[in-house]
Amino acid sequence: MADGSEKNAVVSNKKVIFKDYVSGFPKESNMVVTIDENLKLKVTDDSKNILVKNHYLSCDPYMRLLMKNQSTEIFDPYTPGAIRMPGLTAYGGFYEVCAPKKGEYVFVSAASGAVGQLVGQFAKLMGCYVVGSAGTQDKVELLKNKFGFDDAFNYKEEPDLNAAVKRYFPEGIDIYFENIGGKMLDAVLLNMRVRGRIAVCGMISQYNCDQPEGVHNLMSIVYKRVRIEGFAVADYYPQYSKFLDFILPYIREGKIKYVEDIVEGLENGPTALIGLFNGRNVGKQVVVVASQ
Amino acid sequence: MADGSEKNAVVSNKKVIFKDYVSGFPKESNMVVTIDENLKLKVTDDSKNILVKNHYLSCDPYMRLLMKNQSTEIFDPYTPGAIRMPGLTAYGGFYEVCAPKKGEYVFVSAASGAVGQLVGQFAKLMGCYVVGSAGTQDKVELLKNKFGFDDAFNYKEEPDLNAAVKRYFPEGIDIYFENIGGKMLDAVLLNMRVRGRIAVCGMISQYNCDQPEGVHNLMSIVYKRVRIEGFAVADYYPQYSKFLDFILPYIREGKIKYVEDIVEGLENGPTALIGLFNGRNVGKQVVVVASQ
Repeated sequence: MADGSEKNAVVSNKKVIFKDYVSGFPKESNMVVTIDENLKLKVTDDSKNILVKNHYLSCDPYMRLLMKNQSTEIFDPYTPGAIRMPGLTAYGGFYEVCAPKKGEYVFVSAASGAVGQLVGQFAKLMGCYVVGSAGTQDKVELLKNKFGFDDAFNYKEEPDLNAAVKRYFPEGIDIYFENIGGKMLDAVLLNMRVRGRIAVCGMISQYNCDQPEGVHNLMSIVYKRVRIEGFAVADYYPQYSKFLDFILPYIREGKIKYVEDIVEGLENGPTALIGLFNGRNVGKQVVVVASQ
Repeated sequence: MADGSEKNAVVSNKKVIFKDYVSGFPKESNMVVTIDENLKLKVTDDSKNILVKNHYLSCDPYMRLLMKNQSTEIFDPYTPGAIRMPGLTAYGGFYEVCAPKKGEYVFVSAASGAVGQLVGQFAKLMGCYVVGSAGTQDKVELLKNKFGFDDAFNYKEEPDLNAAVKRYFPEGIDIYFENIGGKMLDAVLLNMRVRGRIAVCGMISQYNCDQPEGVHNLMSIVYKRVRIEGFAVADYYPQYSKFLDFILPYIREGKIKYVEDIVEGLENGPTALIGLFNGRNVGKQVVVVASQ
């Protein structure tokens, strides 16, 4: 803020407010868009506060968990830096938790999402065989033709997920990057290879369940000596500059592609957020709040 | 075998035979004890075969899995050396998979069993706080008074396992040594600390289920960044001599105690084996086949 007059400017400020904690599948009507008309932008000269104007908002599945009336220990470290959260999530989760090796078989669920699309491309850079699952034929095509997955399938068209996973991985799975949970996890557990690794990034199929589905095939953990590990992007904040050094050259050279699903206007924020749970978004969901 | 006459001796040989694959809870009637009356002990002079006389048999929960009509990949490496299998299982599972640190909170289920009793004592040697669960009051007393667990409880007397686990671990659990599965795992998942570790040694509560129970609280893996890892004793065979160097001095000095439940006679083998799944055994179940 350059001078006193700007500090005392009066502006309007649009907000998306949650009416109450949400149980079951969230609805747009759980939120209301309000406008504060006469918001004074006050920062006194001796204040250490700063004024921030948001240009973009990020919509991510984990935000559903913040709408529940229960605390978790994962979100305490949530801090700004987070606009590139999905990239760092994919980076930390794949390279650190999955410990991939060339030639391994990698399966990514919710693969066209903000994190999944990057995990698949990282796995290809590593020389792995990569299959992704998604919920529409368009997304399946995107995975194969834009992101370079070796194969992909629409899980909604598979009456038997176990058979589907087995068909795409006749030799079994070394690495499963888990974004879904529930029935997909059960199918994958039956198809893991010895010393396979499952990095649990999220379980979007469970976020809207008040009572989560049961997972039945956990004995595979013993039979196959499988490691299942949850992680949080906050664990990798110290590696953020290393991550940028890694990914920016690939993005500049076009070796890593990134698809965003951009919605204009904060008033469309609720629709964009709910759309994540219907799979309406294609790629990373972003809301443009201000164009300058 | 010292001379030709012994090689050609005729002996009787008692056997326990499984009649067929077993579904549901195994019964003694699934097995039959037979005697071959006229077994010739033939080893020709140029043979590389050897004759072996068994003195003891080991009964272990994993044997239930071998009675199922399904193959697993964990049992291929099963080899002799295995009479000290529970000790090496406890050693590899606790020190390698759990990666314990002094002062951590450790929970062991089926804690008076062959593996559990050792894990608890290893954890005490490491300076951890250790609680065990078992299925009778006698076993609970054994855990506290003989094996030195800090505390112990009878899970059969707890109507709410989640509340029980929370009561014994108000600060949460760093390490869970999993021998049970099912409802106990669900309760533990809700009480794990951040970056907790669950070493999955077995899931005895599930061995007799044709359709395993569902585990519902897997989202805790993400909330708490928990690592769940299955392992097999075969992975630690190369460390067997290191394990003996470690444990033998403690046993000689009385710092590690070991309780065996000894049954005399192969004809009592089926009863001993079935007893594992009723929790009838106290400590490691051994069948004495021959006294000399």
